[in-house]
Amino acid sequence: MEHFSFWPHLTAQEKELINTHSRIVRYKKGTQVHQGPLDCIGVLLVKHGQLRVYTMSEDGREVTLYRLFPDDVGILSASCVFDAVTFDVYIDAAEDTEVLLTDSAAFRKLADDNIYVRCYGYEMASNRLSEMLWKMQQVLFLSADRRLAIFLLEESSKKNSLEIHLTHEEIARFMGTAREVVSRLVKYFSQEGWVKTSRGCISLTNYEALKELAG
Amino acid sequence: MEHFSFWPHLTAQEKELINTHSRIVRYKKGTQVHQGPLDCIGVLLVKHGQLRVYTMSEDGREVTLYRLFPDDVGILSASCVFDAVTFDVYIDAAEDTEVLLTDSAAFRKLADDNIYVRCYGYEMASNRLSEMLWKMQQVLFLSADRRLAIFLLEESSKKNSLEIHLTHEEIARFMGTAREVVSRLVKYFSQEGWVKTSRGCISLTNYEALKELAG
Repeated sequence: MEHFSFWPHLTAQEKELINTHSRIVRYKKGTQVHQGPLDCIGVLLVKHGQLRVYTMSEDGREVTLYRLFPDDVGILSASCVFDAVTFDVYIDAAEDTEVLLTDSAAFRKLADDNIYVRCYGYEMASNRLSEMLWKMQQVLFLSADRRLAIFLLEESSKKNSLEIHLTHEEIARFMGTAREVVSRLVKYFSQEGWVKTSRGCISLTNYEALKELAG
Repeated sequence: MEHFSFWPHLTAQEKELINTHSRIVRYKKGTQVHQGPLDCIGVLLVKHGQLRVYTMSEDGREVTLYRLFPDDVGILSASCVFDAVTFDVYIDAAEDTEVLLTDSAAFRKLADDNIYVRCYGYEMASNRLSEMLWKMQQVLFLSADRRLAIFLLEESSKKNSLEIHLTHEEIARFMGTAREVVSRLVKYFSQEGWVKTSRGCISLTNYEALKELAG
């Protein structure tokens, strides 16, 4: 709980409230954790695993906005607590994941009574929303080839490997584009000698060229 | 100044600080007020006129995110004050506009020292960023015809008139699309009998049909 920067500003009673309203929850890989506007589960603190936060159009197109890793706090799954946060996200478990979940009702009470908790929530939300805007802007403005190059380089540095084990379908979902677009681009990258493809795997063979394209 | 909800939580000294660091600034219609990441002018309180807040791609494509009207506060023109706000916007004067501008240095000092000012800033920012995300999502996900219908209906209700005095170029900029797309759609709407066009003016002739399209 000391994880939360507002912790020293809580009264003993408030600490007690948050403790009694928090519990460990486990999600199997692929489970839906939070369903956008239909949901307000509370504040998540990731202990193990990985959560994927995304937005979705009415016809089901997805754009992955960011991921939550161990020690990250998910505040947008409690957006109902913060009246000024009017944008809803979807969250899936990208791996088997364990979180500490503080329920919305308790968090709402704390945020209403304690300016430090409220400020923490809005500061976290501003940070996430800014990241999301940056991501949406990328999807909106960047040409798809540049976005794919950026995505491959990011994945590569995240995994610390030149081999990326994702299907075109999965990449398309992360990029918020169609599988066909990704397949066409991967073919083009491969013809240029920038990547080599094999079953479910893309190897970066010309890192410098991809970096130049990513800009 | 009583306009700011944190006002009652300021010390006499803090009130003095904000008063001595605020001044009236006037912008002619069309002037650039704030230049994205290059700028951090401070917190704006609109007195008269109208500001247009937008984002821009590297190659100059614009998406209008929202507008500020009299009594609205612009916090994202002071994003450097709030470390967790990492998304920058551009702001133009859409009309001759008069604002009360509190400079960033003074606002930073207040936000650092006073949790109520900091919380106000992040709450405002969360609200704006949420709105912006909603707008970006619209641009990204909605089909252009639906977006045009929504835009025309919004303009109509804002002006309380069925006549919209904007060029296709201007509408395209508001919608974050190309002029050609708008012209094609206006022609289509006109053929369907939903609008009638004359020099620089679009009249809504079938409000119900547009509403149905807008969804």
